[in-house]
Amino acid sequence: MAVPSSANPRRLLPLFLGLFQGALLLFFALFVTYDEPSAQAEDTSLVTNQVYSTFPFFQDIQVMLVVGLGLLLTFLPRYGFSALTHNFLLLNFSVQWALVLQGLLHHFHHGQIHLDLHKLLISEFAAVTVLISVGAILGRASPCQLLIMATCEIPIYLASEWVIVTCLGVLDVGGTITIHVFSCYFGLGVSKALFRATQQPPHPKETPTTSSDLVSLVGTLILWVFWPSFVAVLCQPGDAQHRAILNTLLAMSAGAITTVVASSLLERDGKLSPGHLQNGSLAGGVAIGVVADMAMPPVAALALGSLSAAVCVLGFRLLTPLLARKLTLHDQCGIHNLHGLPGILGAAASVAAVLAAPKDTSGSHPSQLSPAGGNASEAAEGQRGDRGAGGQALCQAAGLAVAVGASLLAGLLTGAALRLPCLARPPERLCFDDSLYFKIHDQPESPGPDGSAEEGALALKEQV
Amino acid sequence: MAVPSSANPRRLLPLFLGLFQGALLLFFALFVTYDEPSAQAEDTSLVTNQVYSTFPFFQDIQVMLVVGLGLLLTFLPRYGFSALTHNFLLLNFSVQWALVLQGLLHHFHHGQIHLDLHKLLISEFAAVTVLISVGAILGRASPCQLLIMATCEIPIYLASEWVIVTCLGVLDVGGTITIHVFSCYFGLGVSKALFRATQQPPHPKETPTTSSDLVSLVGTLILWVFWPSFVAVLCQPGDAQHRAILNTLLAMSAGAITTVVASSLLERDGKLSPGHLQNGSLAGGVAIGVVADMAMPPVAALALGSLSAAVCVLGFRLLTPLLARKLTLHDQCGIHNLHGLPGILGAAASVAAVLAAPKDTSGSHPSQLSPAGGNASEAAEGQRGDRGAGGQALCQAAGLAVAVGASLLAGLLTGAALRLPCLARPPERLCFDDSLYFKIHDQPESPGPDGSAEEGALALKEQV
Amino acid sequence: MAVPSSANPRRLLPLFLGLFQGALLLFFALFVTYDEPSAQAEDTSLVTNQVYSTFPFFQDIQVMLVVGLGLLLTFLPRYGFSALTHNFLLLNFSVQWALVLQGLLHHFHHGQIHLDLHKLLISEFAAVTVLISVGAILGRASPCQLLIMATCEIPIYLASEWVIVTCLGVLDVGGTITIHVFSCYFGLGVSKALFRATQQPPHPKETPTTSSDLVSLVGTLILWVFWPSFVAVLCQPGDAQHRAILNTLLAMSAGAITTVVASSLLERDGKLSPGHLQNGSLAGGVAIGVVADMAMPPVAALALGSLSAAVCVLGFRLLTPLLARKLTLHDQCGIHNLHGLPGILGAAASVAAVLAAPKDTSGSHPSQLSPAGGNASEAAEGQRGDRGAGGQALCQAAGLAVAVGASLLAGLLTGAALRLPCLARPPERLCFDDSLYFKIHDQPESPGPDGSAEEGALALKEQV
Repeated sequence: MAVPSSANPRRLLPLFLGLFQGALLLFFALFVTYDEPSAQAEDTSLVTNQVYSTFPFFQDIQVMLVVGLGLLLTFLPRYGFSALTHNFLLLNFSVQWALVLQGLLHHFHHGQIHLDLHKLLISEFAAVTVLISVGAILGRASPCQLLIMATCEIPIYLASEWVIVTCLGVLDVGGTITIHVFSCYFGLGVSKALFRATQQPPHPKETPTTSSDLVSLVGTLILWVFWPSFVAVLCQPGDAQHRAILNTLLAMSAGAITTVVASSLLERDGKLSPGHLQNGSLAGGVAIGVVADMAMPPVAALALGSLSAAVCVLGFRLLTPLLARKLTLHDQCGIHNLHGLPGILGAAASVAAVLAAPKDTSGSHPSQLSPAGGNASEAAEGQRGDRGAGGQALCQAAGLAVAVGASLLAGLLTGAALRLPCLARPPERLCFDDSLYFKIHDQPESPGPDGSAEEGALALKEQV
Repeated sequence: MAVPSSANPRRLLPLFLGLFQGALLLFFALFVTYDEPSAQAEDTSLVTNQVYSTFPFFQDIQVMLVVGLGLLLTFLPRYGFSALTHNFLLLNFSVQWALVLQGLLHHFHHGQIHLDLHKLLISEFAAVTVLISVGAILGRASPCQLLIMATCEIPIYLASEWVIVTCLGVLDVGGTITIHVFSCYFGLGVSKALFRATQQPPHPKETPTTSSDLVSLVGTLILWVFWPSFVAVLCQPGDAQHRAILNTLLAMSAGAITTVVASSLLERDGKLSPGHLQNGSLAGGVAIGVVADMAMPPVAALALGSLSAAVCVLGFRLLTPLLARKLTLHDQCGIHNLHGLPGILGAAASVAAVLAAPKDTSGSHPSQLSPAGGNASEAAEGQRGDRGAGGQALCQAAGLAVAVGASLLAGLLTGAALRLPCLARPPERLCFDDSLYFKIHDQPESPGPDGSAEEGALALKEQV
Repeated sequence: MAVPSSANPRRLLPLFLGLFQGALLLFFALFVTYDEPSAQAEDTSLVTNQVYSTFPFFQDIQVMLVVGLGLLLTFLPRYGFSALTHNFLLLNFSVQWALVLQGLLHHFHHGQIHLDLHKLLISEFAAVTVLISVGAILGRASPCQLLIMATCEIPIYLASEWVIVTCLGVLDVGGTITIHVFSCYFGLGVSKALFRATQQPPHPKETPTTSSDLVSLVGTLILWVFWPSFVAVLCQPGDAQHRAILNTLLAMSAGAITTVVASSLLERDGKLSPGHLQNGSLAGGVAIGVVADMAMPPVAALALGSLSAAVCVLGFRLLTPLLARKLTLHDQCGIHNLHGLPGILGAAASVAAVLAAPKDTSGSHPSQLSPAGGNASEAAEGQRGDRGAGGQALCQAAGLAVAVGASLLAGLLTGAALRLPCLARPPERLCFDDSLYFKIHDQPESPGPDGSAEEGALALKEQV
């Protein structure tokens, strides 16, 4: 087990981030500009409408990622400050890094890069993958490790998204395959390679308290409320966006109730498990993303939401312990149950939806309404018309295979890289503890039982 | 006092919810569809505008109900998890149940039911009544009892709303009479019939702690911020909606200050009571709903907000203890003070506003701007022109009478039904305790004083 | 040190607020009305668009002030309830007071005052100054003192804003100079005059706990997410607003990362300080306000955000202790680091931006798109064309000087007035304690160490 070497790792974080900020400034100074002010009154009105139609969705998504997801991760009672801060730091780092990479990849051949809200939104989507993957190793990795992970994951995500959406023409408006499935298996790969065969015994600070569980549930509820914005933001305005919102609402509502049913049935004494509620309520949203704007009856959204929640709860009850025992796979937040299984379910549903859809669906997306910058799904929509339902169904399946395969492989390699001693993985006894990274004051709530652990932290502090 | 019979009640919850989900799926599969995709570009633009004009309001209301109201109910220190989860579960159940009933009642004769955001919003309004009524019996009822209550309340609400708005033509854009007054007296009826003459002694777990009071206040503030969206969402776009937003903002701002004044004056040592702040700040919003879009001067909104807050605080100080003593009426959250009294005040204000309004008000609501699906208040608006101010004033009063009478009667009957032993009302000593319904971990914050209660819970657990 | 005289101070608060509410009602009854209902369908559509374009921003700002700022102030572990409630009370009081004063000052000569959402928004901006200034004396002042402070600060702010924006023509769309710098030095002036030369020793209840720091960080994150709405709400719709949103997002993202770098470098053992995170992450938003809608490259926003965050963290580490030692200046929340220093930086940046801007910028603001009621920056924009870049740069600098000078002077005078014994400044040993103002229940979390302080509070309670 790697013990941080003297003083060095604590300086690595600001060094790395400082260099990155410098490079970012340089890149922006050289290549990035805003759109020219629109000369025509008509254009101004267009920009205005774009701001009013995209910005509220964008803000909703920011609330989800910064507040909702941040709070959801605070279920570890002594690690809440770290979870919230690392989530916030990783979001900002990843968005900036994705902006740079996207600028280089997609726009560089046009000379200057014109920044707009749509490009920021696309980068935000890329950053989501990092925030999800972190769930697998939450509490046992240092901030440096998390940043290196983000550095690796963003380009791999962009490449994988390019293959899946642009090359294969997969329809995935809510990012079920490209974001959720990808980030889940990437995170599991990292976890496997980083912790290898060591089966982690239950850690004394790993058990949630009532109040940490409550705060985490509030995070879930915030995510639950704003999820339709996440799924619908990139849809075609009009019918498709309206349908995406409704489908997401139906799936999440059905999922919430099914979670209660499943959790109650699976626990011996019929009590509900907080972990099931925190995750199962959101599973419907993960699964619906890939089919949200497709032409399918409302009952399909309800069924998909119910099924995803049931699968998520079953995963927590049966699969996670199994994976931990058989594969010594460590999944701290259960991202496989919330993002992996419902994502695969959603992909399967998209195959069915494509096969069952009437022929003339694509007629409902008049291309003159495309949002600024256009998104790749439009091109895909065109392809869809050409290649027929069977071909599109195959593509959806191929997209899933690419997402799982690429992410697992890349995750394993990234996890191996994170074992570098200079990245200062915290020793086991100091895991799940805010006091390793933050100048926080003793918690007067529970002075007794954790005395020894505190002492350890203090001892380390003095060494460094 | 009913002791839950062995094992059975814990299975009733998933059984009931599971059957309901199955029925819901069947109903949706048979009868519900989305609107046909609009063929014309012009129609697409119309749908787009509807999404952009309704969706932000809808999201605000979701935040209010899921996060704001949920947190407000967590003032019971050991019942926060239950309060938040039951609120969430009841919201989802009630919305789905209201969707089904509305489909059957209003739309079935047109064949297929076309689901849209407006219909979901109407169902959400129906669900609010349940969430309010629960406040009267919070902490002393089992989840099964709450679900049965919701099952009874939704159809009665829909019938009462139909009588009040469609038959009587009552103007009530913010739901003051149809939602707040109705749900208050329904809840009180349930409480009275469920607990009968037993005067409840103060329960040791009933007293809020500083931190539970703080979280509850955060819930109040979230409700306070988004309340204008709740009142204005169904208004005519344009002047009426603008006026509704302004009136609500004024009423809530005046109410916030008056709450501080009233609470400070009524307490012997001038200290403020958290309960007064949590409720009084919102009373203005309850009262203003019925008059928010009417033509009245801004000072009326300020005065109504102030008066409602004062009445609410007075209710907590004087009326609640009186009702508990004289009528053995148990009102856990004080819903009579927050929803009942201000609602009646609002109804009275609407009578005055109708009588005082200039004749040509209705001219300011050009009907070509009506939102998709139309709401009943439009029809009412037409009637208003026909019947004159006096007639309309009578109708407002009649609407209030119907709301109070119907809800009280229905609530008493529902409460009697909830006494069925199979519904597993928790025994007194296990009330207000999360550990009866959730697999939560011991609260290390206060290990000492509650030892015996914990033991009791554990003992019961083993029996079941 | 002033000890509250018997009973009197506790009655002063409701008396003062009650009189104010009465005066407000009278003022509204005499002078305030709504706009006439628009007769033309075209006008209705205009109002509708105004509601849809302004209301979401307005709601975002309400969330920031009521929930975000309220939570940020709860870092004092035993003063959270007071911080949240006083913030809420002051916001409502200040908005109403600003409405009255603005009505009298700007609109009285037109007869009736027509209230609309834009005027409420302007009053909300005025109220922000009070909420910021309070940070300097948080926990050591009575509610009466805070209300008197608000009573003095609002008119001075309105006068100073009139001089800076209308007379000098300073461009400051996000209120960096007019709001942040002004309120910071006003607050510091109050603090200096109120506490004079008494160097405050560290108070035992002043130290944040882990959980109070966590809640405060959640407040920061809420502010962080919605900050772009605050900066952009008064911009010209179209390109300028789009640019303001993007610049703010960039500045805040860069600031978040730089905060981590700076905090980590400045602490001896490389650990992050919660206080730095809570404040530094927002510094970029303070600084960017004054230049957000100007024509400048994106890299400038990033650089300004980074620099502000670094300056803010440096201020906490070096300047605050220095000011406390040399000037016996007490700044409880560090408002000088969050609002003062980044505000001055922003003003300097605006000088540079004005000097560097191309000549034809003002052409991109077609005046036919101005929001209802218009804001003063438009007039300024016109002036800018006339006076040339050098003149405008001088004006920006002059505006900063006016804001600092006027606020310091007014703050010192206000602080001196707050020393009046009847305003009941709490004695030192009862500072930072909710139980002085609220009927809250003992905090079972930490019964031991604070026993003596509790006793003191109880003793005082009995005397009063």
